[in-house]
Amino acid sequence: MAKIVMKFGGRALASTAQIHEAVQKVVEIKNKGFDVVVVTAAMGSATQNLWHMANELTEDVSKREMDVVLATSAQLSSALLAMALQEAGYQALSLTGWQAGVQTDNVYGHARIDWIDGSHIEEHLAQGAIVVVAGEQGIDDKHNITTFGKGGAETTAVAMAAALDAEEVIIFTNVDGVYTADPHTVEGARKLNEVSYDEMLELAHLGAPIIHPRAVELAKKFQIPVMIRSSVKETTATVLKEEVEMERNLLVRGVAYEADIIRLTVGYDANADVSLAGIFAVLAEHHINVDIIVQAIINQLKPTVSFTILKEQFAEALQVLENSKVSLGFSFADFEIGLAKVSIIGSGMASNPGVAARMFECLCREHIPVKMVSTSEIKVSVVVPQEEMIRAANLLHKEFNLEQPVQI
Amino acid sequence: MAKIVMKFGGRALASTAQIHEAVQKVVEIKNKGFDVVVVTAAMGSATQNLWHMANELTEDVSKREMDVVLATSAQLSSALLAMALQEAGYQALSLTGWQAGVQTDNVYGHARIDWIDGSHIEEHLAQGAIVVVAGEQGIDDKHNITTFGKGGAETTAVAMAAALDAEEVIIFTNVDGVYTADPHTVEGARKLNEVSYDEMLELAHLGAPIIHPRAVELAKKFQIPVMIRSSVKETTATVLKEEVEMERNLLVRGVAYEADIIRLTVGYDANADVSLAGIFAVLAEHHINVDIIVQAIINQLKPTVSFTILKEQFAEALQVLENSKVSLGFSFADFEIGLAKVSIIGSGMASNPGVAARMFECLCREHIPVKMVSTSEIKVSVVVPQEEMIRAANLLHKEFNLEQPVQI
Repeated sequence: MAKIVMKFGGRALASTAQIHEAVQKVVEIKNKGFDVVVVTAAMGSATQNLWHMANELTEDVSKREMDVVLATSAQLSSALLAMALQEAGYQALSLTGWQAGVQTDNVYGHARIDWIDGSHIEEHLAQGAIVVVAGEQGIDDKHNITTFGKGGAETTAVAMAAALDAEEVIIFTNVDGVYTADPHTVEGARKLNEVSYDEMLELAHLGAPIIHPRAVELAKKFQIPVMIRSSVKETTATVLKEEVEMERNLLVRGVAYEADIIRLTVGYDANADVSLAGIFAVLAEHHINVDIIVQAIINQLKPTVSFTILKEQFAEALQVLENSKVSLGFSFADFEIGLAKVSIIGSGMASNPGVAARMFECLCREHIPVKMVSTSEIKVSVVVPQEEMIRAANLLHKEFNLEQPVQI
Repeated sequence: MAKIVMKFGGRALASTAQIHEAVQKVVEIKNKGFDVVVVTAAMGSATQNLWHMANELTEDVSKREMDVVLATSAQLSSALLAMALQEAGYQALSLTGWQAGVQTDNVYGHARIDWIDGSHIEEHLAQGAIVVVAGEQGIDDKHNITTFGKGGAETTAVAMAAALDAEEVIIFTNVDGVYTADPHTVEGARKLNEVSYDEMLELAHLGAPIIHPRAVELAKKFQIPVMIRSSVKETTATVLKEEVEMERNLLVRGVAYEADIIRLTVGYDANADVSLAGIFAVLAEHHINVDIIVQAIINQLKPTVSFTILKEQFAEALQVLENSKVSLGFSFADFEIGLAKVSIIGSGMASNPGVAARMFECLCREHIPVKMVSTSEIKVSVVVPQEEMIRAANLLHKEFNLEQPVQI
């Protein structure tokens, strides 16, 4: 029988009433004749509460133990949803990550799925049960419990779909699809019916908090269609897939932004015998995500490299740089806070080199300073002062006519 | 290296401050050179909160799913305690029931341990770590999560000690040892330094809520000394062991009581071709614990059998009897609520038949009606009206001179 994997986020499971609503959505799919696997995230504010408890005990929270703590949360939501499905008259059972066969690496808090042994789930599906899997968790090869961090439940859902050869994944979120920009802040933002994996990947990386890039990457790798649906409203979904049919010729498909960016700059003395790779290797070792990197040789005497990181990793990044100063051989480090990233995304961009120029012109005309630039085949990102972020997004949305549905 | 298993109850882990106190107790033993395994119960009122969540969703809570829900609680407390031990500078890690190798039968909510594979724990102990095990949980042979119900954490601790060949178990509770009677309600109640397994078994079965009979049974079976200590006060412990040396000649060693007893009576028509065993078989199938059983043939026409059950199983017991009325062939069922059980316990009793008579005389003299009687080698229990329970316990404590330390 064809299988569908459904994922509910923490906000969609935060109360009894919401769990019952989730049940309605699940049984609707089950009643259409599909085998259904549901993936749950931690309920409501559970994760914050658990962190609070741990931080009360110690400032230096063990990553292994914190994963044991955090894993309880989706275990709870999965069992409660299974109960509610039974109450609705359906055969259902919950499985934790390890029961569902989710094997990961051993990076606590940010584990990645190595493989999923779906046989246990398949057995239960064959018996007609709806299987509810506790998302964002698994075990490593030594049977330690691991959790996946941000986007973990979505990633579980897509990986599950790949392992079980499911038709599609339905992700219920607090937004009702993918927009050309954030409709709360950008005037004329419009929902897209279809988005390609690549575009979504850029959108997700660039701060549209709809679906985590890890989940999109997996979906692309295994070519699994992902429907992004509202958990509160009955509206059409946005479908993620390989080829976007309707609007393929549009240059720019969306505008995204991300606040709380920090720029770090590291400088060297002239002719120092150093490798830039060293810095990024050390940062990667500490799981600090570096985004935009710009190398500048302003004059021959002081080569510098600048890069952006997220605010929440600032303290750790500084610490790492401080500790590595001698071994890496740089002479000074500086930082600039209060920055934001604004990006334009579109698969059509690759074949049209004028897009970036048009973006810079637009921002320049409006006196928005561009601090850093980063481009890829399908996006251009600029770093601007955070107070200009929303205005820049609105200007770019208008500049590329995104409020207008496309004529085919 | 010699091993010690320590168990902390939910109240001893209810707050950050209490977790830090538990840490002090653990490191004190660790610093003496023992390998330490700690077993934790669910924190504070966590279990009630989880039941509340489940009951909000459904009246008919799935036992399997409830165990998945309940198991999160000791998983949380074990990881938090492990963190706090690390904060104190000790190597520590938490293990869930399945990680600790706890294999059980498949009776959800009341699972019994089949065996424990201690090899995983042994490995970590050998590396010098303090191992914190989430108590009252394991997995069945199909890898379903099971929980043990009342006394589960103590049972885990004793079973763990047996599997690991530990020197002793230390159980931290909110009382500071075993008393001749409840010191809150019985005047002159006195702490016992030693209690035999058999005596403790009766005390535990008879309502002294210090250590669960299942744990005592296991301790007796594997001859593991169990120290019962206060988690709040620094006082001498009561030691459970096979042979009690100090006070072995005392007739009665303690008085116990248990409120909220319900008497069910089932009656048959004369000459009905029925088996009494049938009723108890059916009740046992539904895991309803029957305590005192009295068969009475008041006249030849209406043979009856009465038995006591706990209040919390009343509704289910009535349901079971109702459903089995035809198949079991009884003609009526009746019940009496508002009863309590008061018991005297002592290993010396076996060889002294006058003890029961002295008990009845004492109660009769004070006009306390005895509704049912049950005796064993080392105890006599009577069922009395609940409003007379505390008075009866005080009278019996005095009658048998329990307030006086024994002369050797």
